[in-house]
Amino acid sequence: MKRPLIVQKFGGTSVGSVERIHNVAEHVIRAKASGKQVVVVVSAMSGETNRLVELAKQIDKVPNVRELDVLLSAGEQISMALLSMTLSKLGHAAVSLTGGQARITTNNHHNNATISSIDTSVIDDYLAQDKIVIVAGFQGVNEIGDITTLGRGGSDTTAVALAGALEAQECQIFTDVDGVYSCDPRIVSKAEKLHTIDFPTMHEMAHKGAKVLHLPCVAYAWKHQVPLRVLSSFELGEGTLVAGMESRPGISGLAVRKQMMALSVMAEHADIVDKQRQMLGVDDCHWVTDSTYKQLLVGPECCDKLRLVIDDKVVATQEVALLTLVGADAKAQASQYQQLLNLSDISVLHFCEDKHSITLVMEPGAIDKAANVLHDNYIITSESVMREEKQVHLG
Amino acid sequence: MKRPLIVQKFGGTSVGSVERIHNVAEHVIRAKASGKQVVVVVSAMSGETNRLVELAKQIDKVPNVRELDVLLSAGEQISMALLSMTLSKLGHAAVSLTGGQARITTNNHHNNATISSIDTSVIDDYLAQDKIVIVAGFQGVNEIGDITTLGRGGSDTTAVALAGALEAQECQIFTDVDGVYSCDPRIVSKAEKLHTIDFPTMHEMAHKGAKVLHLPCVAYAWKHQVPLRVLSSFELGEGTLVAGMESRPGISGLAVRKQMMALSVMAEHADIVDKQRQMLGVDDCHWVTDSTYKQLLVGPECCDKLRLVIDDKVVATQEVALLTLVGADAKAQASQYQQLLNLSDISVLHFCEDKHSITLVMEPGAIDKAANVLHDNYIITSESVMREEKQVHLG
Repeated sequence: MKRPLIVQKFGGTSVGSVERIHNVAEHVIRAKASGKQVVVVVSAMSGETNRLVELAKQIDKVPNVRELDVLLSAGEQISMALLSMTLSKLGHAAVSLTGGQARITTNNHHNNATISSIDTSVIDDYLAQDKIVIVAGFQGVNEIGDITTLGRGGSDTTAVALAGALEAQECQIFTDVDGVYSCDPRIVSKAEKLHTIDFPTMHEMAHKGAKVLHLPCVAYAWKHQVPLRVLSSFELGEGTLVAGMESRPGISGLAVRKQMMALSVMAEHADIVDKQRQMLGVDDCHWVTDSTYKQLLVGPECCDKLRLVIDDKVVATQEVALLTLVGADAKAQASQYQQLLNLSDISVLHFCEDKHSITLVMEPGAIDKAANVLHDNYIITSESVMREEKQVHLG
Repeated sequence: MKRPLIVQKFGGTSVGSVERIHNVAEHVIRAKASGKQVVVVVSAMSGETNRLVELAKQIDKVPNVRELDVLLSAGEQISMALLSMTLSKLGHAAVSLTGGQARITTNNHHNNATISSIDTSVIDDYLAQDKIVIVAGFQGVNEIGDITTLGRGGSDTTAVALAGALEAQECQIFTDVDGVYSCDPRIVSKAEKLHTIDFPTMHEMAHKGAKVLHLPCVAYAWKHQVPLRVLSSFELGEGTLVAGMESRPGISGLAVRKQMMALSVMAEHADIVDKQRQMLGVDDCHWVTDSTYKQLLVGPECCDKLRLVIDDKVVATQEVALLTLVGADAKAQASQYQQLLNLSDISVLHFCEDKHSITLVMEPGAIDKAANVLHDNYIITSESVMREEKQVHLG
């Protein structure tokens, strides 16, 4: 039985100014007023982390990793104190805690640490005193008490790890969109907000390019069965609930990844390139096999990193874009995708299959149109349901 | 036997930019190169504390005191990390510690806490590893681990308390002036930098208006026999050494305090006003007695605070300025001061005596001239010594 507690996470944009922090406080108070205990996780105010990174870079292009964590962690300390003051001003007892004070212990991997344990006793004590507890996202301390940070998307990870440790009913991720969509609405205007989405599908969407949730956050929530809810900081609504351990039938969504690079290497060099890739920690990639070459598909940053060491093995580079259909039935209809896209003069360069998804590699210029064509034909939206019902009625 | 260790403290102006932090690093490296262990205490970058206070005030005119400490302590965390990175970049192993990490424990008086104990074990461990240790000034944690701040001049207090706990040879306070002067050189152009000054005199100078060192810092150093040295961050030099437990003969310096207010109350109300003053914690004041009235001399901020509660007892207010002659012989020549000042048409409204000083209360417009007249006649500077020697020679 989960306790009547929710964890709410607000990102940098949501706490980007004193006015926005006031808005965040209202979300928190609303949750508290509904009878829940509330633990809030905040990121640094938008711009603050960049400001601090800039100062560090003026000193050293590759700043000392321990000290970079000390520096960056000040960002969340500022926003958590401002939110706590705001709640206090509005008449609600609140207390802010750094990662260390909240007893979030991580491994020693500075700038990209992993949470190893959370001792919830301090938070529990404050909750028992009926206080709202605000915890700095993105940070913890290692075994000897040095400050560490969790790397990109770290505040989401903090939130979901706290929700797991505290056995929260729900972990609410407040962001600048109002939920998870069947595809990025900036690309597919008919994309619809999903009421719910299961973990395997959400994980695959995040893995293949959907930016609404960070992959480690989804992976952690899935593993620890913490229901996630994606909500807008700026409007009221139900958002999207991420729950359910099994992939549902059909095709739930399309993930788009633009600006990818395909690095072609001779087949006999593929193993050594793959080893270099692993040593550099470039794990966000696909391999596809051509008749003569093997191609490594990577994002532009990873590409730069990789080319520093394997440039002599690369025989060709090409800009590509990836479109991934996600859902239990995504692979079953693979043969039809190419036929359908041919009608729009779009060629698929490669197909890559995964357990619950299929990825189509194409030229960047084709991606938006391809996404719209496949969304129209394969994603079940409320509009397509209505259209089908109408056809049945007319038929 | 003191250990070969010095504590260096750099204020907000000294760490006000990446360039200035580089300059600080050079001071630190110079001390390390001389064979000393070095512990560095830093304030927040100039402007940073004000920026944070402004954010807090936008939320609440009187922000929650616990959270204000969480907020403000981020300021030193930023500067200490930047200094540590700079030292690291320059090839020197350094480590930065927050007040809590350095195990500086304070009482629970948020925003104006007092250090209750320092457990030096963490610092000692790092020093034993030959590391430069950088500690956030101005902050500590209370018994339950909440962040506290020490109030005005707190970084000086941190430095001298650390120097005491670590049994340092010297606590060096780097500032924007190159030492302690016989009087503020902006008022008395002939004022001279003192090579050394004893603790009773320095304490009285600070107490009576000299701004170069904060009073609690001097008091702590005196009590714990920690030699202090006041140095410039921006030029090399010996600065002024504050050491010696006994007040030396003669008159060592003049302290000036402008912009004071004299609040006159009827004699029969003096006790109740004094009680209110104590309750409000307004301790930086003098009482002087007139024939009919008693006058309380306070700074403008304390005056505002006090008037909120005792305004009905105040029969007159007057702007005044205070000039204090400090030294073992300052009181002995009191009768001559008025005579001398009469020649310049300056009247002394009141005299107040203390153990090693005498304070002259006058109208604000007269203070600069009075300071110059008394400095010329009573302060022994190198120039006056030369003049006397010349007279002896001529005589």
